[in-house]
Amino acid sequence: MATNITFHASALTREERSTQLNQRGLTIWLTGLSASGKSTLAVELEHQLLRDRGVHAYRLDGDNVRFGLNKDLGFSEADRTENIRRIAEVAKLFADSGSIAITSFISPYRADRDQARALHEVPTPGESTGLPFVEVYVDVPVEVAEQRDPKGLYKKAREGVIKEFTGISAPYEAPANAEIHIKNHELPVMDAVKQIIEYLDKNGFLPAKKQ
Amino acid sequence: MATNITFHASALTREERSTQLNQRGLTIWLTGLSASGKSTLAVELEHQLLRDRGVHAYRLDGDNVRFGLNKDLGFSEADRTENIRRIAEVAKLFADSGSIAITSFISPYRADRDQARALHEVPTPGESTGLPFVEVYVDVPVEVAEQRDPKGLYKKAREGVIKEFTGISAPYEAPANAEIHIKNHELPVMDAVKQIIEYLDKNGFLPAKKQ
Repeated sequence: MATNITFHASALTREERSTQLNQRGLTIWLTGLSASGKSTLAVELEHQLLRDRGVHAYRLDGDNVRFGLNKDLGFSEADRTENIRRIAEVAKLFADSGSIAITSFISPYRADRDQARALHEVPTPGESTGLPFVEVYVDVPVEVAEQRDPKGLYKKAREGVIKEFTGISAPYEAPANAEIHIKNHELPVMDAVKQIIEYLDKNGFLPAKKQ
Repeated sequence: MATNITFHASALTREERSTQLNQRGLTIWLTGLSASGKSTLAVELEHQLLRDRGVHAYRLDGDNVRFGLNKDLGFSEADRTENIRRIAEVAKLFADSGSIAITSFISPYRADRDQARALHEVPTPGESTGLPFVEVYVDVPVEVAEQRDPKGLYKKAREGVIKEFTGISAPYEAPANAEIHIKNHELPVMDAVKQIIEYLDKNGFLPAKKQ
């Protein structure tokens, strides 16, 4: 039957998909204190990727994950780890789809971030290659974050209303080997985004700039 | 500062995103018995959407979900419901990102599918609109599916090795109001895919065909 000529019995490979979409999938994992500026950075980065490069990019953040996929999770240690595990799995699906996943979560524990990285970089059975994982340390001193405190969370943490608050009463384990280290209190957001875009360009992760 | 001129404090709306990508996000939810042909259909549908329409489409199926995001879940009733809940949440994220999510799971219970639909169609606080949800009933008589039985699962179910197997020892609740009903034992796969693409075109869900 003529209509069967173009039938593909097997799924698209990641490479065929990338070629069709003119885009490589990857995950950009932002980590940093509350009020360090992760969300602002993520929003502007997503904008520029879509507008200037025409690539498919998507932010995963508290708003669309904590109240959706992870709404069954609380803040116990086990639940925090499961929270990050699921986010990493979903980011990986986006990256596998050929999209750029931008995750914006405090993700204070090195072990959790390393697990997210391994999930991307180490091919699982049936996969020929891993996926790029770009860890971005959005670094501001805790004093700066506490002074900003747009949601009044640091204040509540100091008052003991919020327990185990990262940077105050719970640790933030700073990345030792992040691909990108942004000193976010010293830069305007556009320069911080530029730092990320330059890294992506240098590593061949983006198509050429639209004319 | 000049670099601040193009800074966007607020996130892209779904509409801005759709305009940038020249694509509307939605979820195509395939449901049907084991061996009804869901995966074959999903693979070919994804191919055609990428190749002929240049749209970003991605399959969620047992391979990339059951062994990843949902690997902590078993087959108890609660776990099956949670399995479908998470798949629906992830599909929604893809649809929200402007992608076409194609889910390929038996999803035998009407209540679970209706919940997946509501999750898409009913805007949650902060969302201005819902997302399209296209339920596709991949319909083959259980006798046909059992005769195909490519993985020998029906045989094991008959022998009692697999308990609570959909269509044999557990119910399949056929959709009453699916957007698309495919009598998949009567059609070559290309015609089944055509039926879906025509529906999507008729409803304005796809950009024009590439020349």
